[in-house]
Amino acid sequence: MKPAICEQFGIDFPLFAFSHCRDVVAAVTNAGGFGVLGATAYTPEQLDQELSWIDEQVNGKPYGLDLIVPAKYEGKGENLSSAQLADRIPEDYRGYIDELLAAHGIEPEPKKRTGAPILSGSTGKELLEVALSHPIKLIANALGVPPDYMIEAGKQHGVPVAALVGAKEHAVKQVRAGVDLIIAQGTEAGGHCGEVSTMVLVPEVIAAIEEMGASVPVLAAGGIVTGRQMAAAVAMGAAGAWTGSVWLTTEEAETPPATVQKFLKATSRDTVRSAGRTGKPARQLVSDWTKAWLPNEGGKRPLPLPLQSMLAEPVIRRIDVLAEQGHEGAQALATYFVGQGVGLMNKVKPAREVVREFIEDYLAAAERLSNSLPD
Amino acid sequence: MKPAICEQFGIDFPLFAFSHCRDVVAAVTNAGGFGVLGATAYTPEQLDQELSWIDEQVNGKPYGLDLIVPAKYEGKGENLSSAQLADRIPEDYRGYIDELLAAHGIEPEPKKRTGAPILSGSTGKELLEVALSHPIKLIANALGVPPDYMIEAGKQHGVPVAALVGAKEHAVKQVRAGVDLIIAQGTEAGGHCGEVSTMVLVPEVIAAIEEMGASVPVLAAGGIVTGRQMAAAVAMGAAGAWTGSVWLTTEEAETPPATVQKFLKATSRDTVRSAGRTGKPARQLVSDWTKAWLPNEGGKRPLPLPLQSMLAEPVIRRIDVLAEQGHEGAQALATYFVGQGVGLMNKVKPAREVVREFIEDYLAAAERLSNSLPD
Repeated sequence: MKPAICEQFGIDFPLFAFSHCRDVVAAVTNAGGFGVLGATAYTPEQLDQELSWIDEQVNGKPYGLDLIVPAKYEGKGENLSSAQLADRIPEDYRGYIDELLAAHGIEPEPKKRTGAPILSGSTGKELLEVALSHPIKLIANALGVPPDYMIEAGKQHGVPVAALVGAKEHAVKQVRAGVDLIIAQGTEAGGHCGEVSTMVLVPEVIAAIEEMGASVPVLAAGGIVTGRQMAAAVAMGAAGAWTGSVWLTTEEAETPPATVQKFLKATSRDTVRSAGRTGKPARQLVSDWTKAWLPNEGGKRPLPLPLQSMLAEPVIRRIDVLAEQGHEGAQALATYFVGQGVGLMNKVKPAREVVREFIEDYLAAAERLSNSLPD
Repeated sequence: MKPAICEQFGIDFPLFAFSHCRDVVAAVTNAGGFGVLGATAYTPEQLDQELSWIDEQVNGKPYGLDLIVPAKYEGKGENLSSAQLADRIPEDYRGYIDELLAAHGIEPEPKKRTGAPILSGSTGKELLEVALSHPIKLIANALGVPPDYMIEAGKQHGVPVAALVGAKEHAVKQVRAGVDLIIAQGTEAGGHCGEVSTMVLVPEVIAAIEEMGASVPVLAAGGIVTGRQMAAAVAMGAAGAWTGSVWLTTEEAETPPATVQKFLKATSRDTVRSAGRTGKPARQLVSDWTKAWLPNEGGKRPLPLPLQSMLAEPVIRRIDVLAEQGHEGAQALATYFVGQGVGLMNKVKPAREVVREFIEDYLAAAERLSNSLPD
């Protein structure tokens, strides 16, 4: 008999793989896991193309979609345009960035460029509508309780809605709001994360949901890049694992080559939780950029969501391009979302090989635990 | 057949329990685990009494000793007296503490009291000599590679020497130095800890030791307060678990009643890594004391080891007494070493009951993992 989570999602192995890269999503799904496309950066048209491509590759096998529709953000309820939001970025912040760039031998920003706000307007809804015209089997959301339209759409289309949480109190709120799957993401995770470690958060969240009398499955996330860690999470009561960082060094990933080399060399102590990219603490590689946004060490206090990313992302994209060209100042500034598990990521492999190794390592871990029992 | 670690230490269940309280040590050892007495605060005479008492209780069953002999500290190699060390505490630090106390309605320190330096002189050696006249079965050390005299004494008496580490690089150094057991302690641990989480650190340390071609067992520490978390660690390759916080709310512990209540109410988000007590980052409950030692938020930069604890401990002891008497200012200042696992500590129990629950929960976790496998 398959575990309930495998029955529910039509998979062989409850390894959920978050990636911005459609190739990774398809490869994991085809290898028996569950690929989830990070869709926040796409336009509705682009997303439609990406999902059509995945549909062709996976031949009906299940995959999902991940959005970031934050519950709280600057300008919420004010119905502002991007330009109006951008006006709330204080001028001295642009000057601060220009000084930071100059100190690294990089030209100042040519004009007041501003990135798109995170999915705080109607874009999230549009992306979701596009996605629901494809056979997606999961909608995941981060940064707070999903908006009503998402939970409603999930129910209407019979697609489970998942929420990422970094604290048990948030899990309780999410279950009350009607989400179908909780992803308990520890502080070691890449991207947005809280302060509680996976080892503590997973049993805490599971216990809190049990206390509510609810039966919502919990995936463990944060630091998990091997099958033995996934087995650890399942031993603690998780239904499976939600992973992200480990796919960044797969052959299919679109991670730039210099960044892949940074990941392979990085240790688990080379990451930091910094609000310098999005305005909310998110784990990434330490760099001169993350150091510049430590307000208590002479840096600027990051702006609230979504202003910080509107300000930062165009600059960071320019830094990334220069860094790939070998510009030393840009390489010192460049940063990348990745978790502490980066210390265990030491080789580039095909995604299907990562899935295969996860399964083998998981089985070995289960045997190790079983062998530890007295006869 | 018993697991190798159980054979090696003569125990039924590889649950190692660190406690400053002899009653907890004896209770865990008598329940089939391995009690370890935190001995740093004792004089040699006191330690002799404590160990004699334990010897009477455990009837030959195994227990160990934990010391903190730091590898690096202020004044190392200068052969200074406590008074000479105390002279290195800048006067404005005493003034800063008096202001902090006044702001909380507490009288200033009556005189320049200074606590004993951490075991940086000959005291560690003296304690170890006393301990080796008792049938101890483990010597554990924290804060760097144990001094030569400790490793030598362990070999001479056939007593394994263990070292706590918070990074894989430290584990490699310790194995090279000849320690017999590595305790990989994640950032979620109470007391001194690094930044890497248990979920990442444990497999990293195990892999690093394997790469050396060494066969030194690894205990997992940090956040572990239940059997399911211990099972998770063993699934990842740990030989067992090293625990501390969970014993603070046992009936046997000498934790003051008001502190026990604080622990029972605390969530996993109520702790912080702060150098405000010892000069090295150590996880403890957030309080006005920990906030006062954030150098970048208007607080003082903590002094190096051992000066900070020499300065802080006499004051903290006075704060603790006042806090127990119900003094509100003191309660706001009081802090206690405890890990994120405090969020899962919700009831006072006898220590033997904690061991029994660990075993049951461990067995259930092993069964859960086994049931997750496809037939």
